[in-house]
Amino acid sequence: MILIGERINGMFKDVGKAIRNKDPEAIQRWAKSQTEAGAHYLDLNVGPTAEDKVAAMKWLVEVVQEVTDLPLCLDSTDYDAIEAGLKLCKKPAIINSCPADREKIERVFPMAKEYKAKVIGLTMDKKGIPKDRDARTALAMELVAAADEFGLPLEDLFIDPLILPVNVAQEHAPEVLETIRNVKTLSSPPPKTIIGLSNVSQKALDRSLVDRTMMVMAMAMGLDAAILNVEDEALIDAIATARILLNQDIYADSYLKAFRARQIS
Amino acid sequence: MILIGERINGMFKDVGKAIRNKDPEAIQRWAKSQTEAGAHYLDLNVGPTAEDKVAAMKWLVEVVQEVTDLPLCLDSTDYDAIEAGLKLCKKPAIINSCPADREKIERVFPMAKEYKAKVIGLTMDKKGIPKDRDARTALAMELVAAADEFGLPLEDLFIDPLILPVNVAQEHAPEVLETIRNVKTLSSPPPKTIIGLSNVSQKALDRSLVDRTMMVMAMAMGLDAAILNVEDEALIDAIATARILLNQDIYADSYLKAFRARQIS
Repeated sequence: MILIGERINGMFKDVGKAIRNKDPEAIQRWAKSQTEAGAHYLDLNVGPTAEDKVAAMKWLVEVVQEVTDLPLCLDSTDYDAIEAGLKLCKKPAIINSCPADREKIERVFPMAKEYKAKVIGLTMDKKGIPKDRDARTALAMELVAAADEFGLPLEDLFIDPLILPVNVAQEHAPEVLETIRNVKTLSSPPPKTIIGLSNVSQKALDRSLVDRTMMVMAMAMGLDAAILNVEDEALIDAIATARILLNQDIYADSYLKAFRARQIS
Repeated sequence: MILIGERINGMFKDVGKAIRNKDPEAIQRWAKSQTEAGAHYLDLNVGPTAEDKVAAMKWLVEVVQEVTDLPLCLDSTDYDAIEAGLKLCKKPAIINSCPADREKIERVFPMAKEYKAKVIGLTMDKKGIPKDRDARTALAMELVAAADEFGLPLEDLFIDPLILPVNVAQEHAPEVLETIRNVKTLSSPPPKTIIGLSNVSQKALDRSLVDRTMMVMAMAMGLDAAILNVEDEALIDAIATARILLNQDIYADSYLKAFRARQIS
């Protein structure tokens, strides 16, 4: 399970403010704490308020790499900002994200190949996010075909079926779960699957409970990766337990501790 | 989701002792507390130490029905004890259980029809519990054929794929999950699926965490019922949340309270 720390995102007030004020400390605290919590990648998103997204992404990549060796997940709809960030990344990164839209595929997939980056492909197109599993799966198939066309290894393509907040769009949640399962049958080797987990619990009262319940169900369907709150200990314990029950890690009475230790090492 | 309270089982020391001493109070306390916690059925198992299982089952059914209106799930390998219990049940009961073994099928299914009882069918035969999903599903198919042959409605057949303790047999857990999914495709209407949940966490350190993680994954695969600790609040909250995410109940900020209230009413 690939765990991507979600916290360095300008949508969070403290991070948005740090980006505007060029305050590296607030960013670096999150980089360090998420690294210690066992993240495998750190997501970097300059947020909606950054005026110069290219400059902001370059700054974020630099200040984060000063304090962690983790690879990065560059998260923007501005592909010039992503490309500027990729040039600075010390390790192969993940591009977050590309919809099933021909124009964007032609911009993103060659860039991924050039910088040896992985790609998160979204099951949406110009018409938006489809409601059901079949339409989502069809868009995933277009992204698989694009990976094939542009020479991106399929295991470097992460399909994101786009979970929506359960308090306003709960009918999407089972469609997302079934899409995860479908996607794992699309090709051999199959693409990876990923969700932006905490989107499901936006404005829900007990966010951690909603997050970890969704996460465990998604793991049962074949989830490979998630962008999530890596500092939510109840969530990490649920993931460790699901891995045991899916026979992905060996049971020992100390499995919770072992999972955390391995994450950090 | 049909929740069956597990606690009146002679394998628990306090219950075993109460059965041996014919102490109704200890039994009735569990009957009342599980009813208040929202059980839909109460499992009754006289345990391995009862000398006269027929007499013990009759006594259990009577003392439990004095304090609750819930229907019962009669749990024994002694079918004479189950039949004696069925004669006393005020509401249609569940027979727990029948393996995919011709001799036992011929004893149990006609009895189910006579007493309008439902049947829990186990994916095991004289050779024991198979390790993989395909063999488990094949045994489920034999039970579906038996229901058809003996005129038991398929929705009154509960297939139990037999979860084993994760600390000694963790390779079974993903097979159980996939069997649940397979079973839902065996017929139209499909049989129901059930697990004896707490078996998975026998001797694990954090039993509630293991139980609720398995439960939520099984729900994602199509689980209909479980025999479980209905007084484990973290487990009940996880079930309520999974139902929301599977779009089986309508989201409201008060959904946890609503789930509990509905369970009790």
